Amino acid sequence: LILLASMVLGPASAASQGSNVAAAFRAAHEAQVLSELAGFLAIPNVASDAANIAKNASALGAMLAFRGFPATQLVAKGAPPAITARWTVPGATRTLVLYAHYDGQPADPAKWKVTQPWRPLYFTRAVERGGRRAQFPVAGQRADSEARIYARGASDDKGGVMAILTALDALRVAGKTPTSNVILFFEGEEEAGSPHLPEVLHSDSAGLKADAWVFVDGPVHQSGAKEVLFGVRGDMHIDVTTYGANRPLHSGHYGNWAPNPAEQLARLLTTMKDSTGRVTIAGWYDDVTPLGQAERAANADLAAYDTMVARELGIGRPYAVAPSLAEAIELPSLNINGIASADVGAQARNVIPTTATVALDVRLVLGNDHDRMFQKLVEHVRRQGYLVLDRAPTDSERLAHPLIATVVQRAGSYDASRTPMDLPLAQSVVQALRATTPGPVMQLPTSGGSLPLIYLTDILHVPTLMVPIANYDNNQHAEDENLRIGNFWSGVESIVAILSMH
Amino acid sequence: LILLASMVLGPASAASQGSNVAAAFRAAHEAQVLSELAGFLAIPNVASDAANIAKNASALGAMLAFRGFPATQLVAKGAPPAITARWTVPGATRTLVLYAHYDGQPADPAKWKVTQPWRPLYFTRAVERGGRRAQFPVAGQRADSEARIYARGASDDKGGVMAILTALDALRVAGKTPTSNVILFFEGEEEAGSPHLPEVLHSDSAGLKADAWVFVDGPVHQSGAKEVLFGVRGDMHIDVTTYGANRPLHSGHYGNWAPNPAEQLARLLTTMKDSTGRVTIAGWYDDVTPLGQAERAANADLAAYDTMVARELGIGRPYAVAPSLAEAIELPSLNINGIASADVGAQARNVIPTTATVALDVRLVLGNDHDRMFQKLVEHVRRQGYLVLDRAPTDSERLAHPLIATVVQRAGSYDASRTPMDLPLAQSVVQALRATTPGPVMQLPTSGGSLPLIYLTDILHVPTLMVPIANYDNNQHAEDENLRIGNFWSGVESIVAILSMH
Repeated sequence: LILLASMVLGPASAASQGSNVAAAFRAAHEAQVLSELAGFLAIPNVASDAANIAKNASALGAMLAFRGFPATQLVAKGAPPAITARWTVPGATRTLVLYAHYDGQPADPAKWKVTQPWRPLYFTRAVERGGRRAQFPVAGQRADSEARIYARGASDDKGGVMAILTALDALRVAGKTPTSNVILFFEGEEEAGSPHLPEVLHSDSAGLKADAWVFVDGPVHQSGAKEVLFGVRGDMHIDVTTYGANRPLHSGHYGNWAPNPAEQLARLLTTMKDSTGRVTIAGWYDDVTPLGQAERAANADLAAYDTMVARELGIGRPYAVAPSLAEAIELPSLNINGIASADVGAQARNVIPTTATVALDVRLVLGNDHDRMFQKLVEHVRRQGYLVLDRAPTDSERLAHPLIATVVQRAGSYDASRTPMDLPLAQSVVQALRATTPGPVMQLPTSGGSLPLIYLTDILHVPTLMVPIANYDNNQHAEDENLRIGNFWSGVESIVAILSMH
Repeated sequence: LILLASMVLGPASAASQGSNVAAAFRAAHEAQVLSELAGFLAIPNVASDAANIAKNASALGAMLAFRGFPATQLVAKGAPPAITARWTVPGATRTLVLYAHYDGQPADPAKWKVTQPWRPLYFTRAVERGGRRAQFPVAGQRADSEARIYARGASDDKGGVMAILTALDALRVAGKTPTSNVILFFEGEEEAGSPHLPEVLHSDSAGLKADAWVFVDGPVHQSGAKEVLFGVRGDMHIDVTTYGANRPLHSGHYGNWAPNPAEQLARLLTTMKDSTGRVTIAGWYDDVTPLGQAERAANADLAAYDTMVARELGIGRPYAVAPSLAEAIELPSLNINGIASADVGAQARNVIPTTATVALDVRLVLGNDHDRMFQKLVEHVRRQGYLVLDRAPTDSERLAHPLIATVVQRAGSYDASRTPMDLPLAQSVVQALRATTPGPVMQLPTSGGSLPLIYLTDILHVPTLMVPIANYDNNQHAEDENLRIGNFWSGVESIVAILSMH
């Protein structure tokens, strides 16, 4: 009933009009929009690939110029530029920053099955549900909402960049102006952990002054429902390497006698987490800032979807760290991103490997300090009897210490942040989205994913909200990343609605 | 004193002459020998690479024909041929088979640092001890004994093939004939586990009839001393894969909730072995045939070298499965050859991997049956709560079983075999070697490495001995495999001595 009311009253009427604006634009221009997105996706976009990042920045500048928005590059030395532009609206008293990022996760082409990372292909639906390759629509043709574009960055987050541009196009073509001043901010190193974002924000903190930043990034709720997220987990990556003999040994001649670093690493990892998924590093769950009443209630609402999600993902028994996925996300996590020692499969050989390495990621929640968490992990490794180093061991260290681990925190760690759920501007955004959908708008106190929003809080003192648009089964950060067309247009609607709210 | 006596009496005098024969040949023909070996090493030799294996077989046939030995190919369908030849000696009453193999372990070129696998290079000594790249000696030049040839197969086991041919050359050039009839047997799929060796042996069991097979393969003792090995461990390879969700998941959105297959695999592996290296699978050490008195005494003699070996290899604390390396080799082993789940390093991404895989090798001793050992491991995995499959799980299996492991025994497993240490012919070989060296000749009841000698026992009913020649620090089965020149020539001397014994 409350939902229904919000669809016929004040802010909702503007937003409904926003939906019409987006739908009309889609009907007339869909092929052109998808074609422009495909061209953008064809440019490799790993943050460390400077030559291709420059091509992306140049393409994005041209896309903005075509729309009449002169682009500015905010540059930190040696980093991909952030691309900004602005639409100043006469009489507007509020300024919103719309954020997306044009860089993508690294990709191993050998692991992609549906296409190659930067060769965008169009499929009639998800491949695992019988989707077949088809041509991109041509002028006058419409795309099915179930169709998908497969490419690195399709959903994370060039799709977000394109949805923002398309929302502005839809308003312009309909002869409308936004109800807020708009600043566009397209980052180029988000997937690398945004190490230069503080420097970039400091470089133009006056120009970036706003009432809120709205992040168009990440997937919507697993139910397909629209979502607003008020906080993000922090992120830290740790590499741990253990050591066997100083050279590869024949596993026949030395097996049973020479220590095996993969066996050591397996044992060490097993001490860090129990079989229910609970981290067993001392003090891991200390320092967590308790949730407020609104946040607890919102998370409780989300638990109902867990069974469906588990079934969809083929998960027989989730970890039991917390009673539900949403509540598990409110606790710091420790996860193996990858593990490697010598080779498996056809390349496996009869060796005792010299090293074994694990890539760990730690997600942090409000209250955690990443350096303090890193020290807890280091202390844990020491308590298992290891000499802990930040480099490879010397020969004399090898002989003096049976157990040696190199434990390194990668650059780019940051802490969590959270905007209070009862902030009036935040609730206006929620209302605007409600008017675009007959379904619920999920409100998540904390996103599972991470963004360095803490920099915005610390440097610009501005509240942050996330309005993700991608399908949740988008293979984000993995091979065969894809964007569902229906989600793209639903996202455009959401952005038009936010830019139309009073 | 016994050692000294053996150097001036009967059999030893023939063997000493053998040493002179080898030394004279080296002085006159070293460059030519190393050049022929380098050419042979330049042909890629992975058993599964049929086109290149054919080139190796053809080259080896030509090398034999050049020496006046017509080669015969013993072929099992779809397998690399075994190349045989014979030198029948008028009046000889004994027949020895000299065995080596011309195939090599698979190699990942990206991991080789000193050279590429099939680009043989010559270094003035071991690279880790300051060796520098140099040209191969040219006619009239001698090689330093510390010099090394780096290439796949240099030591394992094209070096063995070449040492056998060179020993025959040395005898021929000196105008000598062997004191035994000689059959050469060069296998082409040893590193693939010799799956077709039984078929090949059956195909010409009359032609291969002999008093003993002498295997020229593997590294000498870590002290550098010459060695005779009387037995080999059996070998079995097992791949184990665990499963997370049915697609890669973002580690932020699902970490702490979606099960991680790498964490499962680490836990599973930790249940298989304790921190001292002892296998904790029920019944693992049952079925072991006890050693005889001679074998126990020989192993006790070897323990003195363990401290030196550990220091050399940078091992701070060996596993404590048995009191010494030699005794550890008399017990079945379980070793991780490699482990992989998603990626580490620059390719690491924020994912929860879908699978984690370990390549295990099991070394078997006299009394073990490989299928029975495999069942013990499978039962152990089941006891940890896993559904064990020999294929990937279906969707419904995933939902019904929280823990699923695919456990597969690779083709090519075989059991251990051992020749009694007091066999007269075996002791004649030991005596012949003693005359070629001022140092001891180590006698190992059981080699750590594996060869399918059980096929010879079962099919040809012939005793087997191993006379390895490669340097023990040869990076066998790993990147930057190499052969020390001094070891090559010492091996030629050993073979000449064996072919000269009465």
